[in-house]
Amino acid sequence: MIRIGIDLMGNDNSPETLLLTLKELELGPSVEFVAFGLPAYKAICPFEYIETPEFISMDDHPLSALRQKKEASLCVGLRYLKEQKINAFVSAGNTGALVTGAKVIVGNLPGILRPALLARVPTKKEPVAVLDVGANVQVKACHLVQFALLGTAFVKIHGVDKPTVGLLNIGSEAIKGTSELRLAYQELKTMPEAPFHFAGNIEGKSVFDGNVDVLITDGFTGNVFLKTAEGIASLILDRFGSLLPPQEYEKLGPQIRDLSGHLHYAEYPGAILAGAGGIVIKCHGYSTPRAFLNAIAGAAQLVRGNFMEEIRKASKRTRYPLFSSLKNKKM
Amino acid sequence: MIRIGIDLMGNDNSPETLLLTLKELELGPSVEFVAFGLPAYKAICPFEYIETPEFISMDDHPLSALRQKKEASLCVGLRYLKEQKINAFVSAGNTGALVTGAKVIVGNLPGILRPALLARVPTKKEPVAVLDVGANVQVKACHLVQFALLGTAFVKIHGVDKPTVGLLNIGSEAIKGTSELRLAYQELKTMPEAPFHFAGNIEGKSVFDGNVDVLITDGFTGNVFLKTAEGIASLILDRFGSLLPPQEYEKLGPQIRDLSGHLHYAEYPGAILAGAGGIVIKCHGYSTPRAFLNAIAGAAQLVRGNFMEEIRKASKRTRYPLFSSLKNKKM
Repeated sequence: MIRIGIDLMGNDNSPETLLLTLKELELGPSVEFVAFGLPAYKAICPFEYIETPEFISMDDHPLSALRQKKEASLCVGLRYLKEQKINAFVSAGNTGALVTGAKVIVGNLPGILRPALLARVPTKKEPVAVLDVGANVQVKACHLVQFALLGTAFVKIHGVDKPTVGLLNIGSEAIKGTSELRLAYQELKTMPEAPFHFAGNIEGKSVFDGNVDVLITDGFTGNVFLKTAEGIASLILDRFGSLLPPQEYEKLGPQIRDLSGHLHYAEYPGAILAGAGGIVIKCHGYSTPRAFLNAIAGAAQLVRGNFMEEIRKASKRTRYPLFSSLKNKKM
Repeated sequence: MIRIGIDLMGNDNSPETLLLTLKELELGPSVEFVAFGLPAYKAICPFEYIETPEFISMDDHPLSALRQKKEASLCVGLRYLKEQKINAFVSAGNTGALVTGAKVIVGNLPGILRPALLARVPTKKEPVAVLDVGANVQVKACHLVQFALLGTAFVKIHGVDKPTVGLLNIGSEAIKGTSELRLAYQELKTMPEAPFHFAGNIEGKSVFDGNVDVLITDGFTGNVFLKTAEGIASLILDRFGSLLPPQEYEKLGPQIRDLSGHLHYAEYPGAILAGAGGIVIKCHGYSTPRAFLNAIAGAAQLVRGNFMEEIRKASKRTRYPLFSSLKNKKM
């Protein structure tokens, strides 16, 4: 039995809306849900419900909230994950609180310096796994190298055995970008027995050609990358709507909605906190209920695919000799 | 008479192609061109031609190239600009060499710490001026504040008197992003008699709503932003092509090409090096000849609009008291 914990609180959708939508989700008899939220919503919940007296809001400061609201739905859910009472935890709440809470309550995998938020982004071919999309605003070269290993573990679940990894940069030459990027480039290029093929630096425009399976970057740039993609998608679909005659646009309706959904971050199945000691998935605060469902389905897939086992192997891989020399150089 | 210098060398288009395309450009009798390139192309040039014995290629290291190739087309063109023999200089060559060359040969405007590359990006409303899109990989808060003033001077030429300025960040709250971004936020928020309205932090997805006239960011993030927008535009247009029945897509041909052109960075009129002591415009190495023409037309517009006068006013504005306190804090 796969048990998925769901944080009903602290996002733009009301707990009622989320519960109503959750009723529609069919993941088979082997999956059950555990919802975490204020007592008021227990009566309308059709499955297991854990009452929590408080919650962390979007505006709360992550660290103070974690200290002061130990019984918030987000914290209780993470404790359930730590104690293996659930196999995955999905939240659309405060990102900072979720990332820091996962570190404090669940802990990182051994050897992992900084877990990273990983999101799948559509390309002309298969989706690319992009990390970090927002957990770490500034990173060192050693973190970027770990992200490559974490991303590799993730795409293995999706059937790619030796993935191609690219480093998001502003030009393909090895000398491009910040000193940390240049150092990460050298390390990725020369890593012995790497479980991936390193494709070098990749520019934002080439990412969408779909020639890399994993794209690594710091959490600031990755977040800008993701949100820019969403913004321009909305701009183009908007313009197309005004270009096409209404009846034509209407005819294309289902396909356009599908395309738009795939390109719209809010519809995308959330970001996985890769490197944490359990499966933690972050949805956007403005996620649609459908995106929330996608995230839950994604969580079930990760549990079935033994994601934690793959990621544990990757975390062992982080202790190879070259990496420690890198750590001495730049920490 | 407006004289525009054109660097024929060091980009993906051959000098022949550029010269052929340039013949088509009609900017009126008040504009004349001066081309800079190898002697071999002089015979086919229909206007003034300055022979240079060498050129800087894309693969050259910017600093060494500037030291070793003082007679390269890029260097000679910048000297003409410095000596006011031309009013603007357009190049699609090596970005690093052009940015550094402009600093060394033409010089920065007084008070300007770091010129920034400024590009116009389409939105749901008017285009937004984004800077820096690639001149400075890492910046301090004081540079970001100057970028706001430089961007303001630029959009004034385009008729916006008191523009709205946004800071590209990963969330709207003042505490988001790096320490330099937070410092710049405070400074922009409290700047006395600012010639702009500060809209605070703007996320990548909101930029395209068109609610800010100027978007400021470091050159690394700005470059990723620009190229991501280009990449996703190409992805979407590609998918639309396969969605629409061929005859429908054909019917929409001109509008789609127009839309695509506006969203395609390669068609966009180049980036202006705002803060340099003269009008320097950088086109992409992979710019289409049409984009090159757009850049030249853009250069003529800047000369006519007295861009250098506006930008000089902005550079004087950089020496207000608060700014120097900021410089003391973080330099």
